[in-house]
Amino acid sequence: MKTYFYIASSINGCIADKDGNTPWSDEDNASFMAFCGKIGAVVMGRKTYEEYLTLPSSDWPNPEHTTVILTSRPSLPPNGFKIILTPDGPQGAVSVMSKLGKKEIVVAGGNQTWTSFMKEGLVDEIFLDIEPLALGNGKALFQGADFNIQLEFLSSKPLSPQTLQLHYLVKK
Amino acid sequence: MKTYFYIASSINGCIADKDGNTPWSDEDNASFMAFCGKIGAVVMGRKTYEEYLTLPSSDWPNPEHTTVILTSRPSLPPNGFKIILTPDGPQGAVSVMSKLGKKEIVVAGGNQTWTSFMKEGLVDEIFLDIEPLALGNGKALFQGADFNIQLEFLSSKPLSPQTLQLHYLVKK
Repeated sequence: MKTYFYIASSINGCIADKDGNTPWSDEDNASFMAFCGKIGAVVMGRKTYEEYLTLPSSDWPNPEHTTVILTSRPSLPPNGFKIILTPDGPQGAVSVMSKLGKKEIVVAGGNQTWTSFMKEGLVDEIFLDIEPLALGNGKALFQGADFNIQLEFLSSKPLSPQTLQLHYLVKK
Repeated sequence: MKTYFYIASSINGCIADKDGNTPWSDEDNASFMAFCGKIGAVVMGRKTYEEYLTLPSSDWPNPEHTTVILTSRPSLPPNGFKIILTPDGPQGAVSVMSKLGKKEIVVAGGNQTWTSFMKEGLVDEIFLDIEPLALGNGKALFQGADFNIQLEFLSSKPLSPQTLQLHYLVKK
């Protein structure tokens, strides 16, 4: 299984402001949606899923295929799309996707989910869209985990005149 | 006074690992030293100054000109170079540099110092060197301040095949 992180952040590594808002660009969002559509297999955490419940269904990044939600809860409110819950963390999500015949997955956040995939060594590549913002008290991309992981910078490309996408390989 | 931040960070906005180590590239360090030499006026916080006391004197980024240290202490151990202490925060540093005839300063960290300059609106441009590392529990670039500041992305350039420098203007 090949696992991609798709992340948007401020220049100081915040994936949301202190209130949980993600004031990112339309170009970032369009790029994220296109990438999720291309891969056709999305994994996210329960809190991120609940964020999507508050948004228009057109914002759902994986309308055509199954999304796996990491949660210890036995059920979550439906959103009208195909979802499968797993209580078994990153390994559980990979296992579900494998059974569905997927060879690649996109991990769409949030920070607990990205952190747990990193801790378990289950990420191969990282796409990071950097938005032109400095957030004083935002939510950190990774937290509560003592890893120090070497990456290989592959490339950068502008998504707009203001948003730069960086692409890294995770060294193993 | 024109104020520049010169920062190196991991991809997730950490300016050091949890132990305070800064495992950045030689290219980042060379670029930082060259920029400090060009501007000839460096400001840093007391903790950053004390970090330099543990390093070879050849690492000192401002050997030719005066460096202003933000600290409430009446004295600090000398390091053999020209330093002036100010208890008056960013405004105090700017005032000292103005009296020395400086028109531009480089703020060289650490996170308390960068955060206080941001809070007081005393930064014009940001250079951010992004190193290919993901640090789980590192030191955040900004902390303890509730700002949300819009930047303008000016350019990016590779310092090496692995280190990318981003350059931003702070919108006012």
